Amino acid sequence: MLIVQKYGGTSVGTLERIQNVANRVAKARDEGKDLVVVVSAMSGETNKLIEYAHFFSKNPIKREMDILLSSGERVTAALLSIALNEMGYKAIALTGRQAGIKTDTAHTIARIESIDTSKIQEKIQDGNIVIVAGFQGINDKGEVTTLGRGGSDLSAVALAGALKADACEIYSDVDGVYTTDPRIEPKARKLDFISYDEMLELSSLGAKVLQNRSVELAKKMGVTIVAKSSFTDAPGTIISEAKEDKMEEVLVSGVALDKNQARITLRGVEDRPGIAAEIFKKLADENINIDMIIQNASEDKDGVKKTNLGFTVAQNQLEDAKNVIQNFNQEIGSVDFDENVAKVSIVGVGMKSHSGVAATAFEALAKNNINIEMISTSEIKISMIIDEKYGELAVRVLHDAYGLDKK
Amino acid sequence: MLIVQKYGGTSVGTLERIQNVANRVAKARDEGKDLVVVVSAMSGETNKLIEYAHFFSKNPIKREMDILLSSGERVTAALLSIALNEMGYKAIALTGRQAGIKTDTAHTIARIESIDTSKIQEKIQDGNIVIVAGFQGINDKGEVTTLGRGGSDLSAVALAGALKADACEIYSDVDGVYTTDPRIEPKARKLDFISYDEMLELSSLGAKVLQNRSVELAKKMGVTIVAKSSFTDAPGTIISEAKEDKMEEVLVSGVALDKNQARITLRGVEDRPGIAAEIFKKLADENINIDMIIQNASEDKDGVKKTNLGFTVAQNQLEDAKNVIQNFNQEIGSVDFDENVAKVSIVGVGMKSHSGVAATAFEALAKNNINIEMISTSEIKISMIIDEKYGELAVRVLHDAYGLDKK
Repeated sequence: MLIVQKYGGTSVGTLERIQNVANRVAKARDEGKDLVVVVSAMSGETNKLIEYAHFFSKNPIKREMDILLSSGERVTAALLSIALNEMGYKAIALTGRQAGIKTDTAHTIARIESIDTSKIQEKIQDGNIVIVAGFQGINDKGEVTTLGRGGSDLSAVALAGALKADACEIYSDVDGVYTTDPRIEPKARKLDFISYDEMLELSSLGAKVLQNRSVELAKKMGVTIVAKSSFTDAPGTIISEAKEDKMEEVLVSGVALDKNQARITLRGVEDRPGIAAEIFKKLADENINIDMIIQNASEDKDGVKKTNLGFTVAQNQLEDAKNVIQNFNQEIGSVDFDENVAKVSIVGVGMKSHSGVAATAFEALAKNNINIEMISTSEIKISMIIDEKYGELAVRVLHDAYGLDKK
Repeated sequence: MLIVQKYGGTSVGTLERIQNVANRVAKARDEGKDLVVVVSAMSGETNKLIEYAHFFSKNPIKREMDILLSSGERVTAALLSIALNEMGYKAIALTGRQAGIKTDTAHTIARIESIDTSKIQEKIQDGNIVIVAGFQGINDKGEVTTLGRGGSDLSAVALAGALKADACEIYSDVDGVYTTDPRIEPKARKLDFISYDEMLELSSLGAKVLQNRSVELAKKMGVTIVAKSSFTDAPGTIISEAKEDKMEEVLVSGVALDKNQARITLRGVEDRPGIAAEIFKKLADENINIDMIIQNASEDKDGVKKTNLGFTVAQNQLEDAKNVIQNFNQEIGSVDFDENVAKVSIVGVGMKSHSGVAATAFEALAKNNINIEMISTSEIKISMIIDEKYGELAVRVLHDAYGLDKK
């Protein structure tokens, strides 16, 4: 059995913790597993190096940033290998280049193009635990590249895919994916299983266990991810393709809360073709990300068709959005801004095949006098904009309504 | 004109100092020079990484040490390149691999076998200042190797040789090679010039400006070294082939003191063939380095030929040496140990062609009642073992006797 394990910055944040990781790796080896272990830089190292670079330049040249930043993972990989060899295990540290990770030329945000696994496979065959410096590769000119934030997860998933590993275990300081944030709802339950699609929705809603790029790649390559804690022996959460039989059982997998939302409502917008597109294009030009959009059916007013257009942006982009919208003053009746809103979402593949899921949510919130200001739905997600002060309550109410604390 | 510059750990020890180095490099560039700049790790970094490794193992696996230790120079190279680019100079950082430095497979003490300069030359032709991470290369299997302590000097000299550079400037926190240690003799004078051979003698006598390996390589490849300070604009010391006309002028270039000496005298050693060889072989087997050796002419005693055998070792090896010598008790009359000795040496290519150089030293010491216990001479060096407490006085006396404070 071949397992790819990945240990994040917190898991290797001190020398003691690296020794702890070595012990865990050794235990898995004792169980007879073949292992490829991907490591991040010790926590704080990458930020320290970025600060160093910013001492010299606000916008440091990206090719050099990659040589700079790739050093942190090399240090961890070497140290873990030294620890394992000292414990009597055969282990070898490989840099991104040595691990055969080939990327495109986009320095600091490179994409993995291919992996030549021959060296890794040879080293496994020789009985080695292979330790790989995450987050890095080389392009076809031999230049060092890095994969961007969360890049070590990406290295691990890509290696697991290329090596056809039985699983990719991602270790961090949380022990899996929860039905919701346990700080909001103490009854939150760790999920044994979640599908790629649900995980993608939860990640984009702020769950920090895994980055979307890694989940997308895992889905594409069919890699089963197991999200685990490096500090406990809890079994973690399996992230994989939705299983048909599971769909029948589970309607909703999780509830997420995003308080970083601001609502903008444009009232009395002229309902001529392209006006919404024009507004949103201008917002996009300013790099303002629109999240939810609601357009009401238009009404006839004074012989002109007019409509209301509502959308949400991240709170720190509200000022920029206001500036853009001022340019459309003539075509808009009035504008409302509301920073005190939150987005609460329920996610679950079971929704696809079950009616009445949304009704349960609306009913539960209504029963608690929580007014829903906007609604947006996808096949596996329902998001609702509500008054910010009811955010945590709404999470608990929905968590309860779908019985998420029970298996 | 192509110059290779090398900046040591102290010269790049802080971000401010790296900026200072960037300013110096920029100034040389403004003067129209083509530049290859070799950098060490920031001072303290390499030792920190070694401590990290020793947390896991007393004797960390060497291949992994090279991946670990090579990271420090990469950081400095990237930061210096970022600084220069920010200042508007075209610069590019290269790792040891990218700079084409090929070594043998002796991890942590690798020797440079060849340098493929094509990438460096291409980058110079494109108008770049080329920054090279010192101390590292790769072997023919693509493994990362390091060159041992002082390895960045070696990188610089080897690059200067391979690129046929006009000079190799080695920057540190001292501004050149002195006639003696200025802390002992305030009248010590910085030398404008010293020959490779003299420098080799001075290095092995403890002068810390340059390591022997680098001077040897410079001599072999005909590279002119200039030892300079990165903190001043002083012109430094040129280290090159001895010039015939200079030999006539300068008898002695420097005086060195080594207080880390212990003298061992074996009295009444049986003068049979091979006995000295046997003793020294046993000492060598225990990795004890013998420095000076003096054997007196043998005397006839009670019908057996006996001799006295004196030699010196480093003080921290005296105990080990004692243990070895005990095994020869039967063949030795008595043994004397003396830790309170020092070695004072004068070095100069002029000695070769001038008689009376040694006499001047003996006379000067005698005049100051300093007794010489042992003497050893080479073509360009005279070393004398004296009572340790007279060490500093002897340096000043000899410095004066040869007029070293005057040009």
